Amino acid sequence: MELLKNKILECGIVLGDNILKVDSFLNHQIDVPLMRAVGKEFAEKFKNDNITKIVTLESSGIAPAFAAAEEMGVDVVFSRKNQSLTLNKNSTELVYSEVFSFTKNVTSTIYISRKHILPGDNILIIDDFLANGEACKGLISLIQDLGATVAGIGIVIEKSFQKGRSLLEEQNIKVVSLSQIKSLKNNTIEFLN
Amino acid sequence: MELLKNKILECGIVLGDNILKVDSFLNHQIDVPLMRAVGKEFAEKFKNDNITKIVTLESSGIAPAFAAAEEMGVDVVFSRKNQSLTLNKNSTELVYSEVFSFTKNVTSTIYISRKHILPGDNILIIDDFLANGEACKGLISLIQDLGATVAGIGIVIEKSFQKGRSLLEEQNIKVVSLSQIKSLKNNTIEFLN
Repeated sequence: MELLKNKILECGIVLGDNILKVDSFLNHQIDVPLMRAVGKEFAEKFKNDNITKIVTLESSGIAPAFAAAEEMGVDVVFSRKNQSLTLNKNSTELVYSEVFSFTKNVTSTIYISRKHILPGDNILIIDDFLANGEACKGLISLIQDLGATVAGIGIVIEKSFQKGRSLLEEQNIKVVSLSQIKSLKNNTIEFLN
Repeated sequence: MELLKNKILECGIVLGDNILKVDSFLNHQIDVPLMRAVGKEFAEKFKNDNITKIVTLESSGIAPAFAAAEEMGVDVVFSRKNQSLTLNKNSTELVYSEVFSFTKNVTSTIYISRKHILPGDNILIIDDFLANGEACKGLISLIQDLGATVAGIGIVIEKSFQKGRSLLEEQNIKVVSLSQIKSLKNNTIEFLN
């Protein structure tokens, strides 16, 4: 997606060989027209996959997931990371999974309520980054525990030099990344294609 | 806003005299068409306020903020709660504030980068709930530290029996709440008007 790649080249900041900071349009400030274009692109790529719902992980996935959901006419569920008083941990309402974030260097518990994902749902997972695939792995596990199917994964920025994509493709899941970064070495952003 | 009030009556779950759970359309699952309508309503209410940017707090504020921003032709900044590796805490790039959440019973540090809010910006704060006003107070402090002006606050659900609105109005800030809950007593949702 040229518009996205140009934005990454223009505004992305390389912080070492593995970390790309895109706070100016995705992870802190949201470039709203760009996210609308991202949503349209996801809708086009998954238009024949009978998606019934989009699932993302708070927080940076919410804007692209919202835009895609609006284009596709479905709702979004964002998995939560922290337990709040409005969720009853002792109930059987929630399913949990562990996710390790290399970027934040912490393991989080994420969860989704059984009320919002039903057996038979055909889920599109959308996330901001695909790196080692930990977040997607956690979401896939939650969705499968809920009896639903992961029909595809849509990623805004894939770091193709990390193992995420191969890990997901081993599970025969369709993965669409709107940008694929081959390398961040020498402080330079190089795309795969 | 009748559409919103009807949704709250239909799907809101009262968890005690102070807590309303709206996980089915705002805090966990997002009702996308409802959030679009909420965005349009905010855009209408603040159309004469020369808003240059919308600020919200991750995570539940992002969807209504995104929709409103799209209607108003501005970008969104969501203040972050956790320090990630892509943010350098020792730099002077970030401004911080403390926010106590009664719902989660924790104090969080929130922050915004100086890069994304400029002196002269005319900010609309959007958040999911207004209760005791702690989150808004933290955001106002950040925005003022950055030299920008808080032109207004848009709230999806105000718990009018708590002190948030009066606290904000004392600062002469325009507060627009799309629903105002008078009471949650006796397991019953009662609106102010």
